This record gives sequence, C-alpha cells and structure tokens, in this order.
Amino acid sequence: MKKRIGVLLSGRGSNFEALAESVAAGRIPNAEISIVISNREGAPGIERAESRGIGTRVIPSKGLERETYDRQVAAVLEEHKIDLICLAGYMRLLSPYFVAKFPNRILNIHPSLLPSFPGLESQRQALEYGVKVAGCTVHFVDENLDAGPIILQSVVPVKDDDTEESLNARILKEEHRIYSEAVRIVLEGKYKIEGRRVLRTN
Amino acid sequence: MKKRIGVLLSGRGSNFEALAESVAAGRIPNAEISIVISNREGAPGIERAESRGIGTRVIPSKGLERETYDRQVAAVLEEHKIDLICLAGYMRLLSPYFVAKFPNRILNIHPSLLPSFPGLESQRQALEYGVKVAGCTVHFVDENLDAGPIILQSVVPVKDDDTEESLNARILKEEHRIYSEAVRIVLEGKYKIEGRRVLRTN
Repeated sequence: MKKRIGVLLSGRGSNFEALAESVAAGRIPNAEISIVISNREGAPGIERAESRGIGTRVIPSKGLERETYDRQVAAVLEEHKIDLICLAGYMRLLSPYFVAKFPNRILNIHPSLLPSFPGLESQRQALEYGVKVAGCTVHFVDENLDAGPIILQSVVPVKDDDTEESLNARILKEEHRIYSEAVRIVLEGKYKIEGRRVLRTN
Repeated sequence: MKKRIGVLLSGRGSNFEALAESVAAGRIPNAEISIVISNREGAPGIERAESRGIGTRVIPSKGLERETYDRQVAAVLEEHKIDLICLAGYMRLLSPYFVAKFPNRILNIHPSLLPSFPGLESQRQALEYGVKVAGCTVHFVDENLDAGPIILQSVVPVKDDDTEESLNARILKEEHRIYSEAVRIVLEGKYKIEGRRVLRTN
C-alpha cells in the first residue's frame, strides 16, 4: 500500500512540485500525492497539480473562522485517507483542532534556519540582520508559528551582493532537496521525537 | 607599527589563546596582543597570558557599578593605546559608556548562529530546541546582548548523539578559526558596515 500525501498550498507551490518530482523519481518510495488543497481560487499550484493528474480541491477560506475552515479541510483529507500532510506555501495558521487531529503528521518547510527569522519575509529579515549563513528548515507543525520539532535543516552562504531574490533562489534549491528527504524519513517511520529533538532510528 | 589588541576575559579564555597563536603564526599579521584584562582574580587566562609574556591586569569588578568599572578598564586600554578590543569569555555586559568610547572597535564571539540562542548556555539551548545545525558568530559589540553587526559565522552539524560537551567542542574549534580571521579582517580595515551588514571591501 502506498503512503498517501496531502498537500496544502496557497500559491505557486514550488515545494509541491519538488515533492511530486521526488515521488515520480522514486526518491520518496512507496508514496503518492493523493490530493492538493488550496485555500485560494486561482492558486497556480492547483493548475500544476492538475497537469500532473493529481486530484485537487479548492476550499476558499475567506470569511471563515479558522476552525470552521480547518474542519472542512480535515474532512477532505480524511476522505482521501491521507497519511501525511505537507504544507507548501500555505499562508494560514492551523487551528489547535487541526493540529490535534493529525499529531506529528503535518510537515512544513520554512526558508530560514529556525529559530532565527520565523514568520514572513525570512530572506529579507536575514539580509537586514546581516547574517552570514542562511538556510531552510523542515519541521513538524504544531499550533505555534514555525515552531515544531525540526527534522532537517540545510545551510547556504549569504553573499555580500545578495538581494532577496538571489538569496531566495539559493535557499529554494535546498528547500526542494530537504523537503523530499524529510518526507521520506517521516513516511518510513525511521525517527523518534525526544523533547523537541527528532532523532533518526533504524 | 603593529596594531595593538586588548583582550578582556573572565575565565580560561581559550579564544584568547587561539588569537595569541594566530598572532604568533602570522595569521593575524602586523598585530600584537598588548594587554589581557580579567575582571576575576584567578582567571586561568591571566596565567596563560603571563606564560606567553603578554602583559596582564586583573581589575576586580565585584561590587562596582557597571560604568564605574568600565571606566577603569577603558583607562587601562587607553594607556596601552589599544586599536581593537577582543572579548574572550568576558562575562559582563558592557556599559553604553564603554561601547560609545570604542565604536566598532570591540569584537565578541558567541557560540551560536545568532540571532538564534543568545545569552548563556547556547549549546544547551540549541540541543533542547532540536536544531540540526549550530555554529558560532563573531560580531561587533553594541550595548545589547550578542546583537551587533556580524563579521563571520561558521556552521557545524548537530549529531543525534551529541551532548553539550561534544557540541561545544565542535563549535569551539570553529570559534578559534573564525575569531582570528575576523580580527584580521577588521584590523586590515577591509570592510564596511551598511545598516547591520558587514561587507568586505578591497
């Protein structure tokens, strides 16, 4: 039985595409992306999913209370018997209801070396702070912003002539690489969580 | 004329020793460590300085107001015509008076990838948070804790079986390397500060 991945996105979802490529190439073995859900009409990621023959659903979030909305999303995910939920540029905080419903089954990728620079515009924050290294973080999602236990991180240099765009491009390449690797680790179950630490097991 | 470095420490001062080695080996050219000041009696770093023939001064800080104490230290540094002040395990916050007196002439090294894990026990903080990469940061010192513009950072992996001790040892090796490199950059004047960013120049 293939493990079933659900993706939540709000925009272009380049990390969704990277995951889809990794599934197709066997870098995430015995898995499939079963459904892509967007909270926004017209999210380019939905069109890209359709062109790959992956099922999609648009559930507009506008005007809905967080939990009311999340119950709709959870129902679709359950209907599709999803094993793992991957956020890919999903611009919403999850309700405690949603997080509690899928314990340690929701992953996110964030474009910084957490706990540095949580929230929006991490690359701009990094440049303004003047760090010499930046990177990205795959973590389990809890009810706090960009705060759950960390599965993988990858580092890139910050160069003197970097702009937000050039730094973003360098980080994004690493995002695509480590998100797939983290999904593989989690789906294979080869980890344990001690406190906040995610440790590898055989 | 050699550039004159003053070191402030409170304990063993392993970063002081690394700087002294780098000066002796020519990795920090045209420089000398002119004075090592400790705020604590019996700091092992003082003995080590003496064994290298470097001048030392113990100025006990106990019971003195921050600025009152810092004026005594500043007077000794000025007496020795110091070009650059390097903190090496100096367990005191500097007063605004002291920071203003030596603008962009005070360096510190911190055992984390700032802005993550400022303050004490950074390695323990990193392990408890569960980050997968750690490291160290050389920065200019301002009146805030572990907060001035960053000159260099270096990254090390955090391993699943790391203890505070093993992680500390891995980071310390990088501290010794990049502190010397940062001192060289600053003494050669081959940098500019834009906002919070320290950029290299020729």
